[in-house]
Amino acid sequence: MSKKVAIMGYGTIGSGVAEVLEKNRESIARRVGEEVECKYILDIRDFPGDPNESKIVKDVDIIANDPEVSIVVETMGGVEPAYTFVKKMLLAGKSVTTSNKALVAEKGAELIHIAEKNELNFQFEASVGGGIPIIRSLNKCLTADVIEEVSGILNGTTNYMLTKMRDIGANYEAVLKEAQSLGYAEKDPTADVEGHDACRKIAILTSLISERQVDDRKIETEGITTITTADIDYAKQMDRRIKLIASSVRRPDDTFDILVAPFMLASDHPLYTVDGVFNAVFVHGNMLGDAMFYGSGAGKLPTASAVVADVVDMAKHPHRNIPVHWDEEELPIPDHREKTYQYYVRTANTGREILSAFNNIDFLEPTHGDPENSVFVTPEMSGREFEQRAADLHILQRIRLK
Amino acid sequence: MSKKVAIMGYGTIGSGVAEVLEKNRESIARRVGEEVECKYILDIRDFPGDPNESKIVKDVDIIANDPEVSIVVETMGGVEPAYTFVKKMLLAGKSVTTSNKALVAEKGAELIHIAEKNELNFQFEASVGGGIPIIRSLNKCLTADVIEEVSGILNGTTNYMLTKMRDIGANYEAVLKEAQSLGYAEKDPTADVEGHDACRKIAILTSLISERQVDDRKIETEGITTITTADIDYAKQMDRRIKLIASSVRRPDDTFDILVAPFMLASDHPLYTVDGVFNAVFVHGNMLGDAMFYGSGAGKLPTASAVVADVVDMAKHPHRNIPVHWDEEELPIPDHREKTYQYYVRTANTGREILSAFNNIDFLEPTHGDPENSVFVTPEMSGREFEQRAADLHILQRIRLK
Repeated sequence: MSKKVAIMGYGTIGSGVAEVLEKNRESIARRVGEEVECKYILDIRDFPGDPNESKIVKDVDIIANDPEVSIVVETMGGVEPAYTFVKKMLLAGKSVTTSNKALVAEKGAELIHIAEKNELNFQFEASVGGGIPIIRSLNKCLTADVIEEVSGILNGTTNYMLTKMRDIGANYEAVLKEAQSLGYAEKDPTADVEGHDACRKIAILTSLISERQVDDRKIETEGITTITTADIDYAKQMDRRIKLIASSVRRPDDTFDILVAPFMLASDHPLYTVDGVFNAVFVHGNMLGDAMFYGSGAGKLPTASAVVADVVDMAKHPHRNIPVHWDEEELPIPDHREKTYQYYVRTANTGREILSAFNNIDFLEPTHGDPENSVFVTPEMSGREFEQRAADLHILQRIRLK
Repeated sequence: MSKKVAIMGYGTIGSGVAEVLEKNRESIARRVGEEVECKYILDIRDFPGDPNESKIVKDVDIIANDPEVSIVVETMGGVEPAYTFVKKMLLAGKSVTTSNKALVAEKGAELIHIAEKNELNFQFEASVGGGIPIIRSLNKCLTADVIEEVSGILNGTTNYMLTKMRDIGANYEAVLKEAQSLGYAEKDPTADVEGHDACRKIAILTSLISERQVDDRKIETEGITTITTADIDYAKQMDRRIKLIASSVRRPDDTFDILVAPFMLASDHPLYTVDGVFNAVFVHGNMLGDAMFYGSGAGKLPTASAVVADVVDMAKHPHRNIPVHWDEEELPIPDHREKTYQYYVRTANTGREILSAFNNIDFLEPTHGDPENSVFVTPEMSGREFEQRAADLHILQRIRLK
């Protein structure tokens, strides 16, 4: 006997899942109690000569109608047709794991409830943080705590680019090109560089700690496209590093301040040293205190490892739903401008103009690359106050400090 | 209805468990599906005026014989009488969680099997890494991987001391005194500073990844008592940091190179930045690649948070054993001198004497505090070769590089 699995989508992650199941066949069988075998791979493309060529099917119903398949892996990406296919599999009595953050962010609550009603599981460890087990940690490990903050570097592409800009002094366009040639960034890099990818992931994490549905379109999201080498230099001058941080902080009323934006992190911040394509998630629990989870946030095998960990979990619980608390009720998101930060600001104004708008600011020394502008750091203030004070200035850049 | 819990041992961790159960009563009840309440606290001492005074009992059989108590927390420490009491509770049909690394390291396999046979659970998340969910991550999260290495900073006391020595330039005795006055080190600091505490923890982690019993007395264990301010200065000169690392690395024959010793870590090592009382565990999986878990490794509430996470897990699985693969068969431990390292060496010898013993070494510049000695770094070699070459030298210190 063996557990039969089907993989929907034979791209990078899907082929990684097949590879992990094959390479670690023995250790996985020992953990599950029987062998776990890939029976079908759904893809519209042909793969002549591929070792799994004989498993390729083009009709999703072959999988849905095969009672031998009890677990389905979704690694297609995008909301449709992934959503339709996943729902079909759950209604056909199969547990599903997905690496698809767009699907989970938008349809998570609904798919969790379909799984629950049918004594199945819908899991999504690989949708956030690649190989980092952050979903299971929040759901099953840190259960004694009220989680007060989840913040992280959730996008490896932008972290790689920011690291490169800092290390070799190259500008945004140059590092983007390099990241694209290395396969770290896609041809159309919008989802990464504009922060949408990180936004979906923090939406998922916030749904888990708030137990409610978060609409990722309502989260204030700033990307890294405006970061210049001057900003990188000023960050160095302050012994800080610029990181794209996705952050969710619990408020006393159990709503969350959620924000995706570049931050200048101080050198004692736990995320300061997370460089290159690595991801890290910082968690603060009311009893636990600070914790951090660090690892490969993307990449074929680390992400596939997380998918297969879900497969193992679901194979061990064939007819038992493992509850995930995530209701369809929408979580209201407060105006992001209510939260206070210190701001790094680069302007085309004179010191006199700046001082008439802001008090108690610290001016930075102009770097050789940027002699024309005035650069300063504000005291802590709300985003609303910052907007008001800065209204008449010619702001070139402003980055929050953390 | 509510779940009834008993706590054995009302010291720092035990009182922390009572506090977490009380403070997070509501969120815990939501996760478990019913309230979780502490009914008894076993301790030989009296606690007049304590809010839990009325729950104190002195006879372990009151707990064992109360069918209402389904979960017992063991926070007494030491192998006996903890072992006798825990066994009694399992045989009386109660699941048990413990923070007691001595108990788990020595009796883990046996207690796991008693729990298994009786459809109960014996869990021990808090025994390693305090609030860091490393046990559950290895058992339940990273299940798709063959874990090839687990290494970590597993003792907060020594990490605090080494951090202080580096930051303020104080010597070992001075920082030990300070750590004792702050409550970070015990009056008798032997278990921490000689590495025994870290040794028990790496024995537990190695048992989990090897699925066999590790005898911690057979693990080569070096403490931090010989580290001088000169060593700290030379580490700085090399842009390295001295950390007490407990390390377990899988060999091709599925045995493990296990070692507890101070290491000089390079600045790009993931454990390099882990300072103060924090703990961190580095994990390398054959698919996952590198991952790291970081957090408060000790302290009342973080450790209690881990204990209560076990309570939540066990409360949700009242009559279902969650398998832990850890057999009583002993894991053979290879001679630690087989593994190769580079060594930092401080000697009272002349350059000529040193060069007749070692080839291809790099001498370090003598620091002002240590002008008399010769200091050098060797090429990579086995511990056995190092011993042979160093046999005729007057070695003052040798620390492995990583």
